[in-house]
Amino acid sequence: MRYSKALIPTVKETPSDAEIVSHQLMLRAGLMRKIASGTYMYLPAGMRVLNKVMNIVREEMDRSGAQESLAPCVHPIELWQQTGRDVDYGETLGTFTDRHGRGNVLAPTAEEAFTFLGASEINSYKQLPLNLYQISFKYRDEFRPRFGVLRSREFIMKDAYSFHPDDECLQKTYMEMYDAYCRIFERAGVDYVIVEAETGEMGGSGSHQFTVPCENGEDVIVYTEEGGRAWNIEKAPVDPPVKVEAVDVGAMEDVHTPGVGTIEEVCRFLKTQASEMIKTLILKTAEGEVVGVLLRGDHELNDEKITQLLGGVGYEMADDATVFDVTGAAVGFAGPVGLAENVSRVFVDPGVAAMGAGISGANKTDYHVKNVVPGRDFAIEGEKVQVADVRNAVEGDTYDGKPLKFKRGIEVGQVFKLGTKYSEKLGAKFLDADGVEKPCLMGCYGIGINRIMASAIELGNDDNGIIWPISIAPWEVIITLAGATDEIVEAGEKLYNELTAAGVEVLLDDRDVRAGVKFKDADLLGIPVRVTIGKKSLADGKVEMKLRTASEREDMELDKASEEVAGLVKTMKAELAEGKE
Amino acid sequence: MRYSKALIPTVKETPSDAEIVSHQLMLRAGLMRKIASGTYMYLPAGMRVLNKVMNIVREEMDRSGAQESLAPCVHPIELWQQTGRDVDYGETLGTFTDRHGRGNVLAPTAEEAFTFLGASEINSYKQLPLNLYQISFKYRDEFRPRFGVLRSREFIMKDAYSFHPDDECLQKTYMEMYDAYCRIFERAGVDYVIVEAETGEMGGSGSHQFTVPCENGEDVIVYTEEGGRAWNIEKAPVDPPVKVEAVDVGAMEDVHTPGVGTIEEVCRFLKTQASEMIKTLILKTAEGEVVGVLLRGDHELNDEKITQLLGGVGYEMADDATVFDVTGAAVGFAGPVGLAENVSRVFVDPGVAAMGAGISGANKTDYHVKNVVPGRDFAIEGEKVQVADVRNAVEGDTYDGKPLKFKRGIEVGQVFKLGTKYSEKLGAKFLDADGVEKPCLMGCYGIGINRIMASAIELGNDDNGIIWPISIAPWEVIITLAGATDEIVEAGEKLYNELTAAGVEVLLDDRDVRAGVKFKDADLLGIPVRVTIGKKSLADGKVEMKLRTASEREDMELDKASEEVAGLVKTMKAELAEGKE
Repeated sequence: MRYSKALIPTVKETPSDAEIVSHQLMLRAGLMRKIASGTYMYLPAGMRVLNKVMNIVREEMDRSGAQESLAPCVHPIELWQQTGRDVDYGETLGTFTDRHGRGNVLAPTAEEAFTFLGASEINSYKQLPLNLYQISFKYRDEFRPRFGVLRSREFIMKDAYSFHPDDECLQKTYMEMYDAYCRIFERAGVDYVIVEAETGEMGGSGSHQFTVPCENGEDVIVYTEEGGRAWNIEKAPVDPPVKVEAVDVGAMEDVHTPGVGTIEEVCRFLKTQASEMIKTLILKTAEGEVVGVLLRGDHELNDEKITQLLGGVGYEMADDATVFDVTGAAVGFAGPVGLAENVSRVFVDPGVAAMGAGISGANKTDYHVKNVVPGRDFAIEGEKVQVADVRNAVEGDTYDGKPLKFKRGIEVGQVFKLGTKYSEKLGAKFLDADGVEKPCLMGCYGIGINRIMASAIELGNDDNGIIWPISIAPWEVIITLAGATDEIVEAGEKLYNELTAAGVEVLLDDRDVRAGVKFKDADLLGIPVRVTIGKKSLADGKVEMKLRTASEREDMELDKASEEVAGLVKTMKAELAEGKE
Repeated sequence: MRYSKALIPTVKETPSDAEIVSHQLMLRAGLMRKIASGTYMYLPAGMRVLNKVMNIVREEMDRSGAQESLAPCVHPIELWQQTGRDVDYGETLGTFTDRHGRGNVLAPTAEEAFTFLGASEINSYKQLPLNLYQISFKYRDEFRPRFGVLRSREFIMKDAYSFHPDDECLQKTYMEMYDAYCRIFERAGVDYVIVEAETGEMGGSGSHQFTVPCENGEDVIVYTEEGGRAWNIEKAPVDPPVKVEAVDVGAMEDVHTPGVGTIEEVCRFLKTQASEMIKTLILKTAEGEVVGVLLRGDHELNDEKITQLLGGVGYEMADDATVFDVTGAAVGFAGPVGLAENVSRVFVDPGVAAMGAGISGANKTDYHVKNVVPGRDFAIEGEKVQVADVRNAVEGDTYDGKPLKFKRGIEVGQVFKLGTKYSEKLGAKFLDADGVEKPCLMGCYGIGINRIMASAIELGNDDNGIIWPISIAPWEVIITLAGATDEIVEAGEKLYNELTAAGVEVLLDDRDVRAGVKFKDADLLGIPVRVTIGKKSLADGKVEMKLRTASEREDMELDKASEEVAGLVKTMKAELAEGKE
């Protein structure tokens, strides 16, 4: 490709609405442009990167035995109603009614569609296992799209769905996908960690996330240095605190706390600490159930842990009217005493169960109550009440006695064992060897194509721009013509043609701009190998090669340049293709 | 790929809801399944075909200098409001409101998005020409999806958009695309004709369609044998009839025609012929304009010709209330006399203008009127009235004195000169060499990926199934194991491995079913080359090769089979790649 013909609109200024480096550099390097909130248009250089990522994913999926398919992007809502996910997904699900009044879903994922297919095409155990994948556009009506393509409304996802007669078969395919994912991220040149994860709205029995550690990630990885375990924070377990015995705690006592509703305000007002408080949350599920959750005041509710306890059903904080119905008080004054009578279930975090006594809302507007003793003043176990880990791990927590550590990351892939959740609801059954009808066990496996692109930039960048792994760089080599004399142009054309013929992807910077501008753009675009053809070195029959990752330059004979550069590119690619082991 | 592991659910029965052969065979050969009205899921064999078509398109687009990009599938409706196409497209445009109340379009095409990009990125004539393409999912909320993927709600389209400083530059890119399209259809192995076409809702000044002639096509191609011109029926011109002079025609005379509203009924009732009648249509445009159209009773309104006259705005037949408002009569009794006073414009087809006298509705319910003389009883020219070709050509018509002939076809591609319609409305301007700001001239270029697949089947099939061009066949070779002895399996594996290593795409039919079933499926799937390994011939060290297009079989030495088959595949592919010249 000749730069003079290409649309690569680089910009110097950092766009004001781009908060993180990958978003900034994708805009600055002319890889994409925003067309609406959370919606981007990929320009030619960006599209080349996306295509390379998709090709790696496609090759490794094919190699693993998965078969490429394609579900529509618009699904009939009836399929989603059958699994209940039309409700569970909440407002994030994009939906519309067509001209005939039929409901449609802009699919954010395709369990329903592929299970529907499995239901119609699978009859016998002899057809199993079956693993189908697709690479396609997905849509989520995000409340607040942000971080460029990391949380966008439209994205490209590779999703796969597998069908099995038994656990052993599911486990085998699950591990094949797990291994394929390792190869994909290694080939794409992004460092990753594998963490144990929750299954969330997917349902199911087991999941791993592939996460690229980097400071701008939205996910938090929790790990132990000893023992080497790692979890997404949504899954990370914590040791329960040591039970504090309630000794000589007086009777409960109401305190007037007018207009003092938040934990911070109450602590200031009553001169106590958040860890001495019992926080009472009232949730309302997508199915209309009202649930109470008790947390220590310094702890945060874990979205996935509670979703899992709710059976994969989505939820929101209850509205003011519901809170008033349940507690008889305004928001900010809910408490555990008597709560179980007015909600369908109460989850008590072990941190609360272990407290000797605490301060909580009094279920009376403008009042809190002191000397609340778990087990004495409210039940922590019973028909509607259970102790369950519902909080995020925090600094200072341990698991299995080992200190938990934290780092941020970007989730780029996730594999799930789904069990029979979808196959039962959509009727994907098979006859086993004994002629008995059973629901298929299923797995599903997702990779965010755009996120791999953004993660690579988060990992590979400096003040001058992007530093791509060569396997997904828009071009492998840039030839920079530092001047426009006949000799320079001729040498550039020759090298361009030779390298192209050798299968190297070359961008020839033939623009009529200063060499300094060209160097800056080459760095911003992050092309791994730059060959500069300038008047002075060319007089000696030489060109200058520089790696994006190195500061030093190297002279090469013009006549040998194509061979040497092609060899270098081949070596650099082979290093990634072989993985990092 | 091993057949035993693949999902290729062939079926014997012709599905009852599939009307045409391509739709039937795509279902029967297990290439796709319906998931909702006009919405299909591609299964692995079908996806392989789609991927091959997309690769050919991508290669030829890249070769032509177009640059791959990717617009979102969901566009903000504001962009469509700026061009007015949110209205012009009518109900076929899929739209939805997101959680923040913003309007969105499920894009059926992307002129707006790419012109928006051009408006933000193009400044100078030095950046032109620029030609961007994408291959992506498109959506049309079809009133009546039919013919499988030929008229589906979701489809995959390659669309390209080019920007130019002047007509000469546009013409050059237009012809590059035209040539690229020829190469694409030749490589894909589908015979096509190029016809002059209307620009319809696209607007603009010129267009060609690439149409695959076949009896199940929805499009009608009109052509002259002498002179070799061809048009889509939507564009086909007709010579005006010879003017019949009105001699001794009496005054207009009302006739009572109670409940007799259609042309056929009136002809029967008054014992006359449709060609003696003047048909009066009342249309209402998407912008609310009410327009009258006069046609001879035996002629049909041409959708694209009238759309073009309306300035690219969509329209519908006016509702009963509007017809009553305008004519004072029920539907079926509209007439030309006095019509111009009550509508904003009247278009008089030359066929009507040439009539001596005719019978028309009387603008009075249950009445028609005889002896209506064009030019005497109603104006055929004037401020609001013009003579204009608004009808379909029919058998018996001529153009330039030459008889028009007709055949049906499937439109697989279309190229348009858009002029400045979009660039003016969305502000895609550039500074020319003199520093003068001008709107870009634009072209746009579409190819229906799924339609190429269906067209190939319409062209290539017999009673036994599909006959693929080798370039887009799901596999190039099928090895049929006619038996399961160790020798057969071993020979099959060896040949499979050798051919695969030689880069041939092979399906190994290793299923535990009768050879007859395997032969039937191989034919149904349409794989170009079949190699059968059976006990008898194998005893002589031989295998049997058969082309899908031939009835005779050919023996080959097992030891030489991989070399011979690989050579054959290479030759067959080269024939297509070189095109048909």
